[in-house]
Amino acid sequence: MASPAPREIEALIELMARLPGLGPRSARRAVLTLLKKRDGLMIPLARCMADLALTAKTCAQCGNIGPADPCNICTDPARAIGEICVVADVADLWAMERGGAFKGRYHILGGTLSPLDNLGPEELHIPQLVTRVAGEGISEVILALNATVDGQTTAHYIIDALRGAGVKITSLAQGVPIGGELDYLDDGTINAALRARRGV
Amino acid sequence: MASPAPREIEALIELMARLPGLGPRSARRAVLTLLKKRDGLMIPLARCMADLALTAKTCAQCGNIGPADPCNICTDPARAIGEICVVADVADLWAMERGGAFKGRYHILGGTLSPLDNLGPEELHIPQLVTRVAGEGISEVILALNATVDGQTTAHYIIDALRGAGVKITSLAQGVPIGGELDYLDDGTINAALRARRGV
Repeated sequence: MASPAPREIEALIELMARLPGLGPRSARRAVLTLLKKRDGLMIPLARCMADLALTAKTCAQCGNIGPADPCNICTDPARAIGEICVVADVADLWAMERGGAFKGRYHILGGTLSPLDNLGPEELHIPQLVTRVAGEGISEVILALNATVDGQTTAHYIIDALRGAGVKITSLAQGVPIGGELDYLDDGTINAALRARRGV
Repeated sequence: MASPAPREIEALIELMARLPGLGPRSARRAVLTLLKKRDGLMIPLARCMADLALTAKTCAQCGNIGPADPCNICTDPARAIGEICVVADVADLWAMERGGAFKGRYHILGGTLSPLDNLGPEELHIPQLVTRVAGEGISEVILALNATVDGQTTAHYIIDALRGAGVKITSLAQGVPIGGELDYLDDGTINAALRARRGV
C-alpha cells in the first residue's frame, strides 16, 4: 500500500501504531485528530510526554513507576510494612490501588515467567523479593497474579523460592466475580468457586 | 473511581484518552507501554508530535494538511488542474490517494453539513469551492462523499450550489464492492447496484 500522507505525518502515524490498541488505521485517525487539534491537544500531549519521559523513575525497591524513587507507596508511613503484594505489572498495581483495600506495599515482577521470552527469575526480580522478605520484617506475601497458566506458574515458583523464609504466603481468592452470573462463567471458575466454598 | 496512578502519569492518560479509538483503559495501557519504552518510543513520539504541531500547515486552497501551503498536490505540475475531487476529510483524500487512480486536485470540506453541529456551507468551504470552479477553469467536479445520509445531503447541496457554473458534476459510483458477496450486502447497496446496472 502506497503511503498517501506526507512523509512527516507518516512518521508520526508509524510511531503511534506501535502503541498497544492502535493499528495502522486507528493510528491514522488519531494523528488526524491531533493535526486538527494542534493547540488544544497535540502540543500539550507532546509536552506532557516529553516531561514524563525525563522525570518518571522506576522505584528501585518495588519497581513502581512514578515521579519519585523510592516511590510514593514505599515511602508512605501510613502503609503497613509487613505486607508485600506481588503483582506482575504496574497496571496490576494500579488495579489493586483502585480496589483500595490493600494497605501494604508492592513488589512488581515486570512480567511472568516465560523461558521463550527470556524472562527468568532474575529478570522478574524474584531474588530481590526473597531478599526483601528476609530483610524487611515481612509477615505476609500476597500473590496477586493473573489466574492464567503463566500467572499461576510464576506463583508456584515464588512459593518455592520463599519456602523456608518463615513468611505467610497467600494468594487472591478465585471464585465468582461480584455481579457475575453463573450461566456466563466458564467451567474452571465454577469448579474453583465450588472447591473454595465457604460456610455461611 | 479513584485515580491510582501518580498525578503526572494520570495527566498523560487523560490526554491520550481524548484520541479516537482509545478509551480510559487502552489509554492506560498505551501510557504504560510508553513508560517502559522511554528512549525507544516515548521520546521520539513526543519529539515527532511537537515538530509536526509546529510545522504542519493547512493548504489555503484545498484544505489538505502537510508540510507546505499550498500543499504538494496543489503545486504538483503533473496533476490535472481541470478536475477537482470534493472529499469530506483529509482521511478521505488519503483514501483516494491510496487508490491512486485520481490525478487531479482536491477540495476538502472538513466535514459534512450538520446544522446541529453548526456545520453550515461556510464552515465547509463550499463558497470557496464555487469560487475555485468559477476561477480556475475547472471542467469536472467529482463528489467523493460517504454514501451516508449526511454525505449525500452535502452532495445535493453542492450540486445546487454549482448549478449554473457550467461544470460537469459527477459522483463516485455506488454498487457492489470488489470482492463483495451479494449474500452479505445490505438491500440498499444491492438495489443501487441494480439501478446502476451496465451492459456487458
